[in-house]
Amino acid sequence: MARDFEDHCWKDIIDADTVEIYQAYRRKTYVGDNPAVLAIDLYNKAYQGGNRPVREVDREFSGSCGENAWKALPPTQQLFAAARAAGVPVVYSTRHVDTAGVHSTNRNMARERNDIYDIKAELAPQPGELVIYKERASAFFGTPLIAHLQKLRVNSLIICGESTSGCVRASTVDAFSYGFHNVLVEECTYDRSMISHKVNLFDLHHKYADVMHIEEVLAHLEGLAGKRKVA
Amino acid sequence: MARDFEDHCWKDIIDADTVEIYQAYRRKTYVGDNPAVLAIDLYNKAYQGGNRPVREVDREFSGSCGENAWKALPPTQQLFAAARAAGVPVVYSTRHVDTAGVHSTNRNMARERNDIYDIKAELAPQPGELVIYKERASAFFGTPLIAHLQKLRVNSLIICGESTSGCVRASTVDAFSYGFHNVLVEECTYDRSMISHKVNLFDLHHKYADVMHIEEVLAHLEGLAGKRKVA
Amino acid sequence: MARDFEDHCWKDIIDADTVEIYQAYRRKTYVGDNPAVLAIDLYNKAYQGGNRPVREVDREFSGSCGENAWKALPPTQQLFAAARAAGVPVVYSTRHVDTAGVHSTNRNMARERNDIYDIKAELAPQPGELVIYKERASAFFGTPLIAHLQKLRVNSLIICGESTSGCVRASTVDAFSYGFHNVLVEECTYDRSMISHKVNLFDLHHKYADVMHIEEVLAHLEGLAGKRKVA
Amino acid sequence: MARDFEDHCWKDIIDADTVEIYQAYRRKTYVGDNPAVLAIDLYNKAYQGGNRPVREVDREFSGSCGENAWKALPPTQQLFAAARAAGVPVVYSTRHVDTAGVHSTNRNMARERNDIYDIKAELAPQPGELVIYKERASAFFGTPLIAHLQKLRVNSLIICGESTSGCVRASTVDAFSYGFHNVLVEECTYDRSMISHKVNLFDLHHKYADVMHIEEVLAHLEGLAGKRKVA
Repeated sequence: MARDFEDHCWKDIIDADTVEIYQAYRRKTYVGDNPAVLAIDLYNKAYQGGNRPVREVDREFSGSCGENAWKALPPTQQLFAAARAAGVPVVYSTRHVDTAGVHSTNRNMARERNDIYDIKAELAPQPGELVIYKERASAFFGTPLIAHLQKLRVNSLIICGESTSGCVRASTVDAFSYGFHNVLVEECTYDRSMISHKVNLFDLHHKYADVMHIEEVLAHLEGLAGKRKVA
Repeated sequence: MARDFEDHCWKDIIDADTVEIYQAYRRKTYVGDNPAVLAIDLYNKAYQGGNRPVREVDREFSGSCGENAWKALPPTQQLFAAARAAGVPVVYSTRHVDTAGVHSTNRNMARERNDIYDIKAELAPQPGELVIYKERASAFFGTPLIAHLQKLRVNSLIICGESTSGCVRASTVDAFSYGFHNVLVEECTYDRSMISHKVNLFDLHHKYADVMHIEEVLAHLEGLAGKRKVA
Repeated sequence: MARDFEDHCWKDIIDADTVEIYQAYRRKTYVGDNPAVLAIDLYNKAYQGGNRPVREVDREFSGSCGENAWKALPPTQQLFAAARAAGVPVVYSTRHVDTAGVHSTNRNMARERNDIYDIKAELAPQPGELVIYKERASAFFGTPLIAHLQKLRVNSLIICGESTSGCVRASTVDAFSYGFHNVLVEECTYDRSMISHKVNLFDLHHKYADVMHIEEVLAHLEGLAGKRKVA
Repeated sequence: MARDFEDHCWKDIIDADTVEIYQAYRRKTYVGDNPAVLAIDLYNKAYQGGNRPVREVDREFSGSCGENAWKALPPTQQLFAAARAAGVPVVYSTRHVDTAGVHSTNRNMARERNDIYDIKAELAPQPGELVIYKERASAFFGTPLIAHLQKLRVNSLIICGESTSGCVRASTVDAFSYGFHNVLVEECTYDRSMISHKVNLFDLHHKYADVMHIEEVLAHLEGLAGKRKVA
């Protein structure tokens, strides 16, 4: 049974007046046609310091999302498995890192560990899956992502990853601008700040995407996989 | 005297843990070189129903920002006057409306009043000022704005308008991606939802822009105007 | 019967050495799936001065393509009729012209006739067809065209219009970059300069598009229309 | 002494009628303010097979520009030396090549030599110079080039490299669309096909760029270097 349009993590912080003003956005949510999963910045850096509160890991590992990242790991693994079983492409983004000694950006990327922007092993791309290297928040900005999605005949996105208030938001707004129907999987997105996480999901849900729960998205993907076996 | 980096409207809702995690972003704020004012969507629609609470005007005038819009009107007039006195270009955006009976977009723009997307008279463009017509949230998406800014030799932006959680945020993130130093004038931006307004300003301040107070920006522009007279 | 890959208007000016070097591009040409017609800049200006040599009309009507424009008129009418019969969208571009006294561009658009950038009446958009207003050569640059094509689920383009060496070329290169399969209809594209027309079609055919003859494209569209009636 | 506007390599193939039609484009050419050199695709692949006619090297090394590439090597070295002496940034593009076993593109990049898309050693980037990795013809498409140029405060480009009818043309058209004043250095651009080279330079010169001779550009850069020493 579908949960209410406002039955999401932001319930405890959005006041009644705001909810009422936003009723104009109320609608049925759904996963779109010809979807791809867009997995934003699931790199090692976000998990550094382990499954502990952000405030504790932050001092040593600036940019880590601590326990918020680790909590999203199992549902994200489920999401990827279900997508692959359904033949839905999984597309990754990560930060652009220079190769071959030639600097292609001006970014100050302090030489930490070499694999800090590699996708976390538990979530790693399968052979042949697309990884987009980006310099900015949006996975679309300054990258060929739109051209790859066009060539893959993708018409909608299932978005997950981090951070909700940074790269996930910027990528989702761009995806909407390009004309995609977007689903954001609530349990598979995370941030360092809980209030930013909640308010950004609230904004995105009303304006640019359908925020859905992992069980709804898994059920849809299992349906697709079932049809595929029959066909 | 410069106010503290966190001395802004979000003080009452951002918890101490989050403020601490975000200390890595602490820095000196400033108006950049060769600025232009970017005035986002200051059209009549945002002011409909008059200077009353959003909840009251919203029923009749969906999309109005009510008293939040009206409160920002005088400082925005001051901002424009100071910019023009300093020779700083003022660039506007508004929503694209079809002309000549040919539909150029799929948007459902219910035929309300004809002038609903005209810039409000009190804030109207001067002859020769640029107005960008857009279909999406960002003033950069699907528009020639970046080319105009390049031709104007603009290297930084002073951003105002509405809504903080919609077009202002999307435009500011894109401006940052394109390499501009951005200032957001707190008193000259507004939204229908106060929590969205505050959290979006908080996000933007730390990640993509310097949120500054109107008196700081006016002082800077008056300085520029002074130098201009001397020269 | 399909004509040879090099059986096109450039045959008389491309030397044997070049043809041999370009044999690596030889392939079967075809109209792609889910096409739209993209009609570039078929505005009145291109036809001014009438069906006479470009050199004769050019003095009075700078920018006119004279007899080259007029020759392409009947096949372009056939192309549009066949596309509409097949349910294939026709999308137009023209130059952005300012409205409401506010200048949105720096372009020096000498105040000639008011309708100079209206689409020529014989080729005019039908109600509901999309017109993209642009400032630059490419119909994609600084416009929301890519978003509209995505929303229309268009995966390939059938391109016509003018000029071959200007807006048609720039738009076709961008369309290829975005991942579309492109067909250019030889008899429905034109230019002021014949050598530029021929060499640009040669370049585009080998690198970015399938240059096809009008009868091949009409046959394909008639096939689509036939299937549509049956279904 | 400045050479005539039409005193370029295309003189022997552009007919008198076309030259006359194009007189509307006649103007003074110049290197713009705050320039950067944009060096397009000067990778090893273009030089394979050595300093021999394209037809001879083409069979074994598809994509080589043979003697045309080698002829442009000394003036391009001069151009880079003069730019560096004048403090003018040199920005490179080359083709994106996948790293780390994860395929980020669908391109069929037959596994030839590993260094085929490395910049040719004689023209190699200096430490700290920017290299843009691209998948499409234009160095702007799907890359962060525009953001880097904005951050570098670059307002005009001096373009060289290959191929004139492919990546050089696409990049120059985009640069014009973004609002840059462009210079193309005739002796430092090349192609496999001479007629495509000449007609593309002719098109670009009239519509999107000032095609200038290497000695004019060197003289300008030496002037900049001189001023810099004095300052």
